[in-house]
Formats: sequence, structure tokens, C-alpha cells
Amino acid sequence: MRNPRNYSLLSDAYEFMMADAYLLSGKKDLRAVFDVFFRMIPNNGGYAVMAGLDKVIDYIRHICFTDDDLQYLESLGLSREFIEYLSDFHFTGNLYAIPDGTPVFPNEPLITVEAPILEAQIVETALLAMINGSMEHATGARRILDATPENVRVMEFGARRADGLEAAIDASIYALMAGCQGTSNVQAAKMCETKALGTMAHSFVETFESEYDAFLAFALRYPNNCLLLVDTYDTLRSGVPNAIKVFEYMRDHDMPLDHIGIRIDSGDLAYLSKEARKMMDQAGFEMATICLSNSLTAEVITSLRIQDAKFDSLGVGDNISKPEGRMGCVYKEVAVIDNGRVIPKIKLSNDIIKIVNPGYKRLYRAFDRESGYAVADIVCERDEVLPEDEMLITSLSRFDKSTVIRNYELKPLQEQIFIEGEYVYDEPDLKKRIAYCQEQVNRLYPEVRRILNPHEYYVDGSEKYIELKKKMIKEAGEKRV
Amino acid sequence: MRNPRNYSLLSDAYEFMMADAYLLSGKKDLRAVFDVFFRMIPNNGGYAVMAGLDKVIDYIRHICFTDDDLQYLESLGLSREFIEYLSDFHFTGNLYAIPDGTPVFPNEPLITVEAPILEAQIVETALLAMINGSMEHATGARRILDATPENVRVMEFGARRADGLEAAIDASIYALMAGCQGTSNVQAAKMCETKALGTMAHSFVETFESEYDAFLAFALRYPNNCLLLVDTYDTLRSGVPNAIKVFEYMRDHDMPLDHIGIRIDSGDLAYLSKEARKMMDQAGFEMATICLSNSLTAEVITSLRIQDAKFDSLGVGDNISKPEGRMGCVYKEVAVIDNGRVIPKIKLSNDIIKIVNPGYKRLYRAFDRESGYAVADIVCERDEVLPEDEMLITSLSRFDKSTVIRNYELKPLQEQIFIEGEYVYDEPDLKKRIAYCQEQVNRLYPEVRRILNPHEYYVDGSEKYIELKKKMIKEAGEKRV
Repeated sequence: MRNPRNYSLLSDAYEFMMADAYLLSGKKDLRAVFDVFFRMIPNNGGYAVMAGLDKVIDYIRHICFTDDDLQYLESLGLSREFIEYLSDFHFTGNLYAIPDGTPVFPNEPLITVEAPILEAQIVETALLAMINGSMEHATGARRILDATPENVRVMEFGARRADGLEAAIDASIYALMAGCQGTSNVQAAKMCETKALGTMAHSFVETFESEYDAFLAFALRYPNNCLLLVDTYDTLRSGVPNAIKVFEYMRDHDMPLDHIGIRIDSGDLAYLSKEARKMMDQAGFEMATICLSNSLTAEVITSLRIQDAKFDSLGVGDNISKPEGRMGCVYKEVAVIDNGRVIPKIKLSNDIIKIVNPGYKRLYRAFDRESGYAVADIVCERDEVLPEDEMLITSLSRFDKSTVIRNYELKPLQEQIFIEGEYVYDEPDLKKRIAYCQEQVNRLYPEVRRILNPHEYYVDGSEKYIELKKKMIKEAGEKRV
Repeated sequence: MRNPRNYSLLSDAYEFMMADAYLLSGKKDLRAVFDVFFRMIPNNGGYAVMAGLDKVIDYIRHICFTDDDLQYLESLGLSREFIEYLSDFHFTGNLYAIPDGTPVFPNEPLITVEAPILEAQIVETALLAMINGSMEHATGARRILDATPENVRVMEFGARRADGLEAAIDASIYALMAGCQGTSNVQAAKMCETKALGTMAHSFVETFESEYDAFLAFALRYPNNCLLLVDTYDTLRSGVPNAIKVFEYMRDHDMPLDHIGIRIDSGDLAYLSKEARKMMDQAGFEMATICLSNSLTAEVITSLRIQDAKFDSLGVGDNISKPEGRMGCVYKEVAVIDNGRVIPKIKLSNDIIKIVNPGYKRLYRAFDRESGYAVADIVCERDEVLPEDEMLITSLSRFDKSTVIRNYELKPLQEQIFIEGEYVYDEPDLKKRIAYCQEQVNRLYPEVRRILNPHEYYVDGSEKYIELKKKMIKEAGEKRV
């Protein structure tokens, strides 16, 4: 739906080359299990936000190869047999995923693909590109929101800094999902059935004979959305006084005053906002709001709060549309299924946190029955039934770190999206995803949502799972010597 | 061509709101001049690379509003009169741009839009998103290439880390334009009529009973592209010995040995590559190449060279598809044209380098007649004829810094792309853009291409232009007091 274009060829060439080699090695019917996961939370934050599943669904449902595609693939040296295989290709596997909007943590299977190995291989690159980009926007937006007081609105303004037009649309959509109250991006707002928001640019002020003329023209045209940009010439000597003059004009002409305000986009936002607040209050415009913008990050917002800056809304650009924090999601083989037998796979590394969690797993989130807060996520074996009263859980990377949890409610985190290629998920619309994300974020301890040095949330294994992982590490180590 | 989708609504809402306010303020026929430029080179590099003009052209040629778009815009509170204006909207202005592939510098007008102010405003957001993203890919790729020895091939592998699928395509295309020798992205390679490149993933090795089995299967399938990934288990104890065993098998079976090699994707690339080189040479496989990958940056490549690492090709991912260095291009009004009279505009700032260069300008590059190297870029007034023998030029931000240049050849940097809305440019195909970029980069002094602390290239003004700028700063300052 989102992408009318066929992206089936959007894949690293090696996916096709490996699939071809599998086919010719007689591995066509071998099934494999791959997990999508990340290892680090961007910006050393306390959590990330799942996003991009909507795009993955669209891609998987429409993947197929045209004659033109096949001709190109053949020119790369792929075998005639493989090209024939691709000619009626569609996804026939099982796909499980954590729903968009869910807070997620390192080493959790965000998406699990269980499919014939050729199919599982071919979808890798596009899946990762869709998930990585989308999650960066959603996670970046949540970080801004967690730094912002609850009564302050955050608007996403970042289209111009996005990595092209599709990324600009994604940034806006996932910013809204994560909880931003609006976006300036008209196309994205239209797609989300919400109202795009906007004010004015410096060039607007410059185009008129004077700043006052520009403000008045805007006020007359948009009395119900009258946010005046006051920093074109001199915020406190020119911009704010001219804005007040226009507000006085509006008052004298009985125009509505409930949507007036100013935006400050440069200079020392803490100092300027406090002075502007005083000036507007003294002139009797306590209802005039203050919007701040200009390269806002969670850290800048925190510093503005500490210095008691005055603001009612924030406009955030590239820290949502192109955030510095990267997801780095990877797609790793965790098992093969040979004639129905699941064989877990492990890849050793000198660094224990880089050892992939083996096996076709399940993932649960335990919520405290009293407080409702999420206390831990638990990885277990696929056929395992977890105890309902109390349970020993152990760190996936430090086997000496165990905890007993009690009085919890378990919720499986992954939903089945495709059963043997058939789409079976009921995708919630954006409104539902916004509500879901807010609700799930509210179930995180405030310590996990902290911007700086957040509490590290438990992502642990069940006793049985930890035994499996230990055993596999031992065996792989012995094989290696 | 590239984007079958209509992106006309991909714009910040304020562009439409300002345009509407201009219309209702009787400014429909006012023309304005806007420049696209950036202020800082990503990564403190010596130059950036122009890119994305192809997308801008496509966007400008196809911009128009469907009934559905107009209905949505009306719901935002835009006036009936403005909606009618938009109903047969198309671009009728002049657009000038520096061609894709040209090395460019801060404060230069990359694109100049001279058009009715409503049109100039409406295209802002999309232009910036297209130019910012594209230039980051091209500039990021050039930085990698400038760090790499000339006989080493650089392949772009970054699709999975791009910000979605469109950005993945852009990254690959602009990486090729900038001089990368290949891409793994099949869709982009097909669009560029080149061959997508690929090897194998760790999962391929893991799927087979043994590393040797996996390598042999791959070698039998791809004897002419036999790059074996040797770091799945243990690079020097397992990977390289198994690769050598397979090369021996190939030699024993009279298979071609001119496309064999290994890829190392983890660990200490300097040490491992030197040891692997020795081992392969001792076994008689001097022709086997070494490809290195794993989060390569210009700095890492430099460090590998210093330690005499052995490599024939590099695979580069997110440092091209999602580089940390940001362009931050802006779109600023530099003049209005009222009844044919050009009135330059200036916006002061406390920081002199943030003062926009006023006026409807021209931009020339001066090449030394003897060496062929580019010596300076010169901004001048539109109607100015620059001297052909010698010229005093002065820094745009430090008026005390002047230089006399002599024995140069002047070349205008901008080309006219649209004349009164009509597309008049003959867009070079990718092959031509690759050759052009290489040729232009070769005309930069090596000191400008240095990765660390490069020489700062002159972007100066003519005497007449500097006088204009000084006068405007003085007048604007007086007006402000």
C-alpha cells in the first residue's frame, strides 16, 4: 500500500547468489530460522521502539519477479534452474514479529522468519533496511518525548533533512506513532489522516517591507494559527515587540486570541524564551504560546528545563528525521530445520554479547501484577511452558547473573504475521498504534525511560534456555579447538 | 523517471501557508530568488560532492496537485483562491544548478531558483530533502575513496543500513557516481546498467556441515567470482586454511584461478590480512585477492594503510548508505524581483559566516592554466564581467582576507536547468556523470582531498560583490539599531 513500486530486487546480490548455491547443493527443501535483532540501543538509551513492520508486511506480500527482473538476474550469472525457481516466487514461510510501537531491547528477536532457506535469504536485505530506518525514527522521537514535559507538544519538522522523500514520509509517520503531536509534512499527514502543522519561515518575514507588515499579513490570514517567527532580525528588540503589536491589533479588532504565539528558532533559547514570556505577559498576552526550535535534542531539552526556559511546544527536525543514533539491526541464522527436526545454530565470537542466541525461540514480557510495570523479557525454547508463579531467569550474556521473579503476568511479544505464506495478521491502523505505543511505554519503569544512564532492563533466558545456550557454546568451542 | 510516485505534497505545511498568505497579500506576481547552499563540509572534509539534481529535475517536471491533494489542502484551512491557484499549478520559473558530480564548497549556490515567490516557496522542502540526502551519500563515498589507494576497488554494501528502500537505491547510485567500483544492491545496479556484486554471508557457511563444504559448494557454483568469507569460525586457524584447501581443489581440477579470494569481516583487519596474505602466498595463491569489510571509515582505512594491511578491495556499508557527516543544506531568499528590479536581500546574524550571501549571483571556478588545478571559486554579481587576466578576490566572511589570482581559466559552475518552466538541460547519463566526477575531483589539489585537516579551498567574492555585501551589512545594521 505504502510503496506502489516493486522492490523485489532491492537486495544485496549475495542473497540471490547464496540462494542459487543452496538450490544447486540440493538444499531447496531445507528450512531455516532467522532472527532480526539489534545489539545496542541508540544514544545509550533505555529502550528502542519497534517500527517498520507495516512496510515489511507490504514487501513480503508483494514480492515477485518480473520477466525484466529475471533477465537482469540471469545476466549476473545465476543459474537457469534458479531463474526458473524465481519465476513463480512468493513467500511461503512463517513470519513472526513484535508489533510496531512496542518498546524493545537488545538481543530480542524483533522478527523471526522460518521458511525455506532460499526464501529466508532473499528477503534479508530489504527487511533490514526497512526495520533499521523506521526504528531510528520512532526511537529518536521517543527519546525527544521522554525528555519533554508532558504538557508540551512536540511537532516533527524534519522533512528537509531526511534521506530523501520516502524517508521523510517514514520519519513523520513513525514520529506520530511514537507520540509526537503533529508533523509539518503534508504528504505524511494526509496519509495519516491528520492535520499538517505549520507556521512561517524567515524568508516570509524578509519578503515584506517590515517585520510588522509580515506578522500582520500572517495574522489576518491565519488568526486561528498565528504563530509568529520572531528571530529574523532581533528577537527581543524587534521580533517580540512586533508580535505584541500584532496581538494588540488583533485584540483591538476583536479577533480571536486563543491561537496566538511566537516561535524562536535561533539564539539562546533559554534566555530568549524567558524574556519573551515576561514581555508578552506584561502586555497582557499570557495566552500567547512559545514554540522553540533549532537542532533540539533530548539533551538540549533537558538543559532548557533545568534553566526554566518557557515553552509550550517544540519543533524537532533532524533528530527525528535523521537521528544520530543508529539501530544496527542484523539478521542471523539461529536454526535449520531438516525434515522437521530443529537444529539450533550458534556462531561464537570472542565477545560474549556478540554470540547469537541460538534456536527457534519464544519471547515473553513479564509485567508485575501489582504495579503493571514490565519487569523483564524472557527468551525460552519454542515448546517450553513457563511457570506462572515464580521463575529463575538468567542474563543471556552473563550466566552468573540470575534473578527470581514472582507475581507476574506473561505476555508473548511476537505475533504471527504470515502462516505458510498467508497473511494472517490484523494490522492496527495508526490511531491504534499511537495508543498502543503510549500504553506500552507507560508500562516501562521511569528509570528505563531516563535519558541519561537509564536502568538496564532485563532481557534474560529461562533456566532451560540458558542450559541450551551453555551447552552449545561448550560444544562449538570444543569443535573449534 | 526515478519516482513514479507524485511527491507534490511532500512539503512542510508552512510552504503552502506562506504561499497562500502571499497570494492574499497581492504578492502573486512578485518574483524571488532562493539559493540552496550548505555551511559546513561533513566530517571537516575538504569538499562535498553535488548530487540529487536528477531527482530535483524529476520532481520539478512532475509537480502538480490532484483533486485529492487539493481537497486535503483545503481541509488545512487554505483559501479557496489559493486552492484554485494550485489546481493548474506547474513550475514556471528559472532554475540553475551545479551539475551532479561536481566538487562543491560551503556557501556556494548549489541551486538557484528564480520564480514567482509562491512557486519558489512550494518547492523548498522537497528540494532540500533530495539534495541533502543525495549529497551525503556522494560525499561520504568520495571521502572513503580519497582514503583508499588507487589500485584498491571500493564496493558499496550498505543497503541494509540505509534509511529505507529508496534511500538504499540513492546510496548505491551516488556511490557509483562518486567513483565506487561496484554495488551489491541489485535494484540500483540494474537501474545503472551495471553488474551487482556479491559474495556470501556467515549464515551460508553455517548452513553447511563444515566450512570446507560451504566453500567448496560456492567455488563449484561461482568459480569466476569465488570470494570466500573466512571469519565465521576462526580466520587464521579455520577460514584461511579451508579457503586454501578449496583453491587447491580448484587448481587440481583445472578450474580458473583468476577470480579467487577471501573476505575478512571481523577481528583485527590489519593483522589478519597480513597473516592471510602470507599463508595464501606460501600455498602458491598470490593471485587470490583479499577483501576487507566491517564498519570501514576513511580513518580506519588510513590506519590499515599505515600498518601495511593487505587488501585488494573494500566493502563499505553504512558510511556510504547512512554516513555520519550531514550536509545541512538550507534554502534562503537572496533577492526579490519587483517589476523587473532585482532587490538583494540579506539576513544578519551574530556569526558572520551565518550571514546569507545576498543577491542574484553568478558563480565561477578558476582553474590554473598551467597545472589545471582549481584555485578558487568566485561569487559575483549577475551582470558582472570578470577580468580574464588577473583579479583580486576576497573571502566572503573575512573581508580582510584578499588574494590576487592570475593566469586562470574561468568556468561558470551553474547550468540553466529550467527556463521559464521549460526543461532545457541535457542530463548526462550515469556513465558520463562518473567520468565527470572523477575528472573534476582530479582537478582539486591533493591538499584539498586530504582526509584530515585539508587545505581550505577559496570561495571568495569579486571586488564588486564584496562591496555590495559590505554595503548591505552596513545598511541592515543601521536599520536594526
